[in-house]
Amino acid sequence: MEYKVLTEGDVLFFQSILGKENVLNSDLELYAKDCSENLEFFPDIVLKPTTTDEVSQIVRYCYENLLPITPRGAGTGLVGGALAVKGGILISMENFDRILEIDKENFQVTVESGVINYHLQQAVESVGLFYPPDPSSWQSSFIGGNIATNAGGLKAVKYGVTSQYVLNLEVVLPNGEVIWTGANTLKNSTGINLTQLFVGSEGTLGIITKAVLKLLPKPQNDVSLLVPFRKLDEACDAVSAIFHANIKPSCLEFMEQRAIHAAIDFLGIQSMPMDVEVEAHLLISLDEIIEHDLPKLVDVLTQFDIGDILFAENELEKNRIWQIRRKVAEVVKQNGYTIEEDTVVPRANLAKLVREMHDLADKHSFKVVCYGHAGDGNLHIRINHPIHKNSYNNATIREILLELFQIVKNLGGTISGEHGIGLIQKNYLPIVFSSRNLALQNQIKHSIDPKNIMNPGKLFKN
Amino acid sequence: MEYKVLTEGDVLFFQSILGKENVLNSDLELYAKDCSENLEFFPDIVLKPTTTDEVSQIVRYCYENLLPITPRGAGTGLVGGALAVKGGILISMENFDRILEIDKENFQVTVESGVINYHLQQAVESVGLFYPPDPSSWQSSFIGGNIATNAGGLKAVKYGVTSQYVLNLEVVLPNGEVIWTGANTLKNSTGINLTQLFVGSEGTLGIITKAVLKLLPKPQNDVSLLVPFRKLDEACDAVSAIFHANIKPSCLEFMEQRAIHAAIDFLGIQSMPMDVEVEAHLLISLDEIIEHDLPKLVDVLTQFDIGDILFAENELEKNRIWQIRRKVAEVVKQNGYTIEEDTVVPRANLAKLVREMHDLADKHSFKVVCYGHAGDGNLHIRINHPIHKNSYNNATIREILLELFQIVKNLGGTISGEHGIGLIQKNYLPIVFSSRNLALQNQIKHSIDPKNIMNPGKLFKN
Repeated sequence: MEYKVLTEGDVLFFQSILGKENVLNSDLELYAKDCSENLEFFPDIVLKPTTTDEVSQIVRYCYENLLPITPRGAGTGLVGGALAVKGGILISMENFDRILEIDKENFQVTVESGVINYHLQQAVESVGLFYPPDPSSWQSSFIGGNIATNAGGLKAVKYGVTSQYVLNLEVVLPNGEVIWTGANTLKNSTGINLTQLFVGSEGTLGIITKAVLKLLPKPQNDVSLLVPFRKLDEACDAVSAIFHANIKPSCLEFMEQRAIHAAIDFLGIQSMPMDVEVEAHLLISLDEIIEHDLPKLVDVLTQFDIGDILFAENELEKNRIWQIRRKVAEVVKQNGYTIEEDTVVPRANLAKLVREMHDLADKHSFKVVCYGHAGDGNLHIRINHPIHKNSYNNATIREILLELFQIVKNLGGTISGEHGIGLIQKNYLPIVFSSRNLALQNQIKHSIDPKNIMNPGKLFKN
Repeated sequence: MEYKVLTEGDVLFFQSILGKENVLNSDLELYAKDCSENLEFFPDIVLKPTTTDEVSQIVRYCYENLLPITPRGAGTGLVGGALAVKGGILISMENFDRILEIDKENFQVTVESGVINYHLQQAVESVGLFYPPDPSSWQSSFIGGNIATNAGGLKAVKYGVTSQYVLNLEVVLPNGEVIWTGANTLKNSTGINLTQLFVGSEGTLGIITKAVLKLLPKPQNDVSLLVPFRKLDEACDAVSAIFHANIKPSCLEFMEQRAIHAAIDFLGIQSMPMDVEVEAHLLISLDEIIEHDLPKLVDVLTQFDIGDILFAENELEKNRIWQIRRKVAEVVKQNGYTIEEDTVVPRANLAKLVREMHDLADKHSFKVVCYGHAGDGNLHIRINHPIHKNSYNNATIREILLELFQIVKNLGGTISGEHGIGLIQKNYLPIVFSSRNLALQNQIKHSIDPKNIMNPGKLFKN
């Protein structure tokens, strides 16, 4: 597709819709990066609409004039999804920051898509309600981006990922038309499921402007346990054992020793004993029915070769151990592990996955660190290659990742559990999808965005 | 679309693929009806394939020869979805009845789409696992049909509907190609969500041949309560109060007095006291954390004007009260309530919905009975019209239903919570969807089934 090059006339049009203050065409560094590797792509212009109607007018203009659009939330994505790889128009949703209605009676909230996850959580908790999805980026990421990538997080193991909380979406389609996708109901068998088609579509099918989200009652109490395992395999096996004992952890995280050490060093935590013989930790939370599940959990854990369990019951103790987990990605990235993968496998194959990742690292002489949402089989794998720091368009890393994803595929898994595909994973899709499956995805994309103006270059090949 | 008329040559082709015994072209009464109203549409031929490859060959032939296909599960649908309204080919999935693998380690099961829900439940329970979705038709309906309609059931209020349990699908597309839609993982942000696009698509986008389903550990114990309310509004209000008290019922059903009386009479239950002043019952189950939730539940209930609560703790007692709920639809249908609607509204609007349905019945001089999944806001409304027994193509009933769905829409709800749209609800879609939304649904249908051979006349206009 040959896109049109932005002209002065286009800029004037956008200014007439948005006002000059919401049309930026210089100093765009902030909008040229996201949180993936070290990539930088400058859009030609950044637009900051405030209403759905403004988004609609902009998009219709781009549709008629063949201008490529990159929708952008907070830029916390890890796969280059918010980068303007074709230049053109970047639409920042930062002004869509209003929580429109909390419906306490029906446990629902209606938000604009630029609301920060953390702000939403705070707002609903203040009225005794609970929005569970909590990706690592929760303090800055937008709900719209969470929906576009079907974000997960720590609590997904018990409460499910973002898709389970999205009841209805207002979307601006690639031709500028505005629709609501569904209804504000807990069940819905009315029409094909447009809502879930937009969840996880990474801004390639339209721009999410509003969302109606399901809420839960706020759990009343919780406890966390940091559990050191002398053998890495046993930490993985314990994950399965916990579920077989019919325990429902609200979080169940895995950290290799290399990951937790880096975070503890970084945070300057002195008082945390770290047995050198320990290979991995599980970080486990229980909520609500603690008295019911905690004894069962300790029974399961003590069947393995573990060190002393650190129990965290008050907020201070809980924060101390959870900040370790929350900081891991940032810290290991600073330590040179710049390439992050987001693999997911059937849960019982976790130990095999970790072992095969270590073998792969040995074979290709890079360092690897594994951590993540063990309860979901969702393992983050960070690679520290002595020479190459980006995976995008690097032949050596590409070869490694082809092997890595083939291992994941052979274990019944797939490329991304919660980050999405975006720019930097799209070339690996043929490993996990047949050509017919990919053709069908492309047909659907083409039927909704025939001119390929909506986040081009992401998720789909072109 | 002008479809081709079936010829002797077509029959011979199908016989060459399936063998004569799996190609039926006479005595097709069994395949001409489903469980909706009194409709009858005969296919020209019924095919009973046994393998995905056979389905693929049949569908490819139909695609090339412009023969309309109606996929059919057990025929338990309530909206005419399995009726061959265009004649042509009916593909019965009854031979797809194998449970292929129960993966105990990963809490997953792989089934063919013609497996009966009840058989699946029995099979997984025998190894300590649990498949929650349990539509009323569970003893005969096929998993493929459950997926195609996104079926709900009694336990959806705690455990969610079918869509939450579908990890991956094998689907024969309208051109005969076969794909797996996703991966056998608990989380997945890889590609657009084809899996959830096929869930609830009612056989209009392809034929589901296999499914990988998520399982849970089997809950260990449960208790049920039948609670009589002297005022119908209070029964509805109690539903909201239960959730506000942070209680998690595993079932939460509502029955108007007219419904429960009919079922009790039909079942010949003598010993159940029925206070004439009672307007409605709630039927509530708790599982697992009974000792935690039961006292809280009784506290909530006793704030309302209720009669004696009937507690059912052993299997005999539980069966006695649950058979009432399970029999309601069949019994009230026999009593002349032949037209069933499957409305769903935000939960707190349930009392308003029931009240407005009664007003509507008074206005148009028909009888109405309401019951259903109160915890989800999903109310089944059955209509007994003194003259008209079918809604399909009946002008009087159509006028009534237009008003009925407008009420539902005004309360924030939609047409179907779990039955689907099929043949008999499709003309009401413009009440709940904008023309742009419907156009988008049609675009997607057209991109996947450009010749409109897959379940034509259902869900979509033509």
